[in-house]
Amino acid sequence: MLRKNRLFTPGPTPLLPSAVRAMASADVHHRTADFRALYQRVLADLKVFVGTKNDVLLLSCSGSGAMEASVANFTSPGDRVLVLTAGKFGERWRDLAQAYHCQVEMVEAPYGATISIEDVKAKLTPHVRVVYMQATESSTGARHDVKAVAQLLQGTDTLLVVDAITGLGTTHFDVDGWGIDVVIGGSQKAVMIPPGLAYLSVSERAWKRTTSATHPRYYFDLQKERKAAARGESAFTPATSLIAGLGAAMDFIRENGKGDLALGRELLIENAELAAKMTRAAASALGLELYAAKAPASALTAITAPSGISSDDIVKRFRDQFGAVVANGQAEMKGKIFRIAHLGYYDYMDTIGAIAALEQIIAELRPGHIEFGCALRAAQEAFARSRAEKKQAQAK
Amino acid sequence: MLRKNRLFTPGPTPLLPSAVRAMASADVHHRTADFRALYQRVLADLKVFVGTKNDVLLLSCSGSGAMEASVANFTSPGDRVLVLTAGKFGERWRDLAQAYHCQVEMVEAPYGATISIEDVKAKLTPHVRVVYMQATESSTGARHDVKAVAQLLQGTDTLLVVDAITGLGTTHFDVDGWGIDVVIGGSQKAVMIPPGLAYLSVSERAWKRTTSATHPRYYFDLQKERKAAARGESAFTPATSLIAGLGAAMDFIRENGKGDLALGRELLIENAELAAKMTRAAASALGLELYAAKAPASALTAITAPSGISSDDIVKRFRDQFGAVVANGQAEMKGKIFRIAHLGYYDYMDTIGAIAALEQIIAELRPGHIEFGCALRAAQEAFARSRAEKKQAQAK
Repeated sequence: MLRKNRLFTPGPTPLLPSAVRAMASADVHHRTADFRALYQRVLADLKVFVGTKNDVLLLSCSGSGAMEASVANFTSPGDRVLVLTAGKFGERWRDLAQAYHCQVEMVEAPYGATISIEDVKAKLTPHVRVVYMQATESSTGARHDVKAVAQLLQGTDTLLVVDAITGLGTTHFDVDGWGIDVVIGGSQKAVMIPPGLAYLSVSERAWKRTTSATHPRYYFDLQKERKAAARGESAFTPATSLIAGLGAAMDFIRENGKGDLALGRELLIENAELAAKMTRAAASALGLELYAAKAPASALTAITAPSGISSDDIVKRFRDQFGAVVANGQAEMKGKIFRIAHLGYYDYMDTIGAIAALEQIIAELRPGHIEFGCALRAAQEAFARSRAEKKQAQAK
Repeated sequence: MLRKNRLFTPGPTPLLPSAVRAMASADVHHRTADFRALYQRVLADLKVFVGTKNDVLLLSCSGSGAMEASVANFTSPGDRVLVLTAGKFGERWRDLAQAYHCQVEMVEAPYGATISIEDVKAKLTPHVRVVYMQATESSTGARHDVKAVAQLLQGTDTLLVVDAITGLGTTHFDVDGWGIDVVIGGSQKAVMIPPGLAYLSVSERAWKRTTSATHPRYYFDLQKERKAAARGESAFTPATSLIAGLGAAMDFIRENGKGDLALGRELLIENAELAAKMTRAAASALGLELYAAKAPASALTAITAPSGISSDDIVKRFRDQFGAVVANGQAEMKGKIFRIAHLGYYDYMDTIGAIAALEQIIAELRPGHIEFGCALRAAQEAFARSRAEKKQAQAK
């Protein structure tokens, strides 16, 4: 059959059509009143989307750039920092902090596991200047308990910086209530536009820290960005078309929330949650193991390839037979797991399509092992159950 | 969940992305060498797509315009014509021929049925100047036997004009071998672009008829169009962006046929055939009745709404719950049937998505009647069977 090119990767995610149209029309100079109006509107919308009263800044770079900014602006050489890691993105925090000559303490969990809060508690001392963690570890599909870590830090002088690049729009956060100092997001994730923008919220505590942090910084100087944002501008030439796309994405999320952006964000989270539920039910019905079974994120589902089968083969069949790009495992996990995304612009038909293709692939790879329809039945039941529960809740 | 807007209507059909890009870039004047090169290439490609050595002309109008041209150019007032009708589009031939004051003889079959060849034979006399028919009747989902009708006309002076607007790209034709004088196609069908263009092939016999046909005609004067086409132009201002889109669609079909447009067309037909097979297997598993069960077209599947349920409700649920636009019945069939399209740019995931949504809708409308996964299992089996057969055929 024909094969439409469909991304099921946890970033980049499928593009929102209205954002694509906005990007295509963004023939604009960035030092004009027109662009300033757009920029200010997008920054204001991002505050609501992140769910904070803190400043939110936009950077023209990938999420890793905002991660670097969160090291360069909040630490000084020799500072002790605590990095929580259970996957490739946790390791990025470690690499960044080491590149900036911090003293890096680590709390590690095996790939696929979630960070133990007890372990964090054991490593926390008043000398720790910053805790760096992920909300969801996209390399393994695991979710970490941001709220519990935030609670450990209450009343201390330790900053909490959360890479929520796949966590924003897939996880319920109370940024200000829990006291998360910095939350980082990326454009190619739940906000449904291409890579090239990162955004982050910065608490007053974190702003104060920037005044004592001595690391060299220029493009990623957050104070400079803050001052520019106060004028409705960016410090450097911004990725204007992506910002126009982000504006359209915020409009879409708001419209989906019937005019309420915060409600729209919650519905977007629920969307990912339901797609994840359907996919997990289907994987279990196929006898497949979830890689992060204990604390699975809603942003994506990582599934262990059946014994004797490489996930390379599964990923290739998704691509060659169905036009679907699913993610392989990264580094050591390559060949062992594959990952199907739920964050952003996925609907029921996308989700059921990926599950149906997986069923075909497993049937071909393991002849006689499964009955056609078993995974789809499980997904259909999960969808119908969720719909019934929602109706019941609305009736109350 | 989020709802992506998806057309499952038998025209307009989903847009081909490369055609959309070509249309967006078509900032071109129609009396230039650039446009002439495009126009000539598209006309040449259409000949291969239609599968004929006859002239193929493009008209900037909907398919009905090309139908009118096929009355205005090939008949004169008072001419006897035979119209084969079993649905709303058969009736359009009748209305057109009557508007042009032809003497209209009819061969009718009930909605959902296919034309009886015996009935055609009984009505055919040497006085019949033209036979007008559909290849597939999109209002009912039935297929008519074009080859058998063409055989009846061999050795006679009667022209055969086939509305293949939904038939081209969904049905195997041997236009020249069977002796079909005129075949009509439309842009918003298997060729995956928006409405606004019609195309038709014209045999030498049919060209000869135009010299004696006395109906008034101007915009739809095919001889004028033929002369312009010989110069690589259109007689009137053409819909340039749609023609650019059509060129991109021809490229897509050719690439899909590994450089062979005729093979690409056959694969496009197989695509619709397989989507139709999956959908029919699913409908039967749900206990639903096919409206055109005896001679179903591959362009679309018309399904009878279960007793006590209006197809209005089914169509509405597809739209409201899943963002999917399926077609209701037309006129007398409204409320009784619904129609799911397979022609053009549909892939496995689209097809399985529509089936999954139908399963959810029927489960909600008829609680306790069906088991989740039953329709999907049938579709999955049909897909896997077809894949296995194709592999076997290739191995031979």
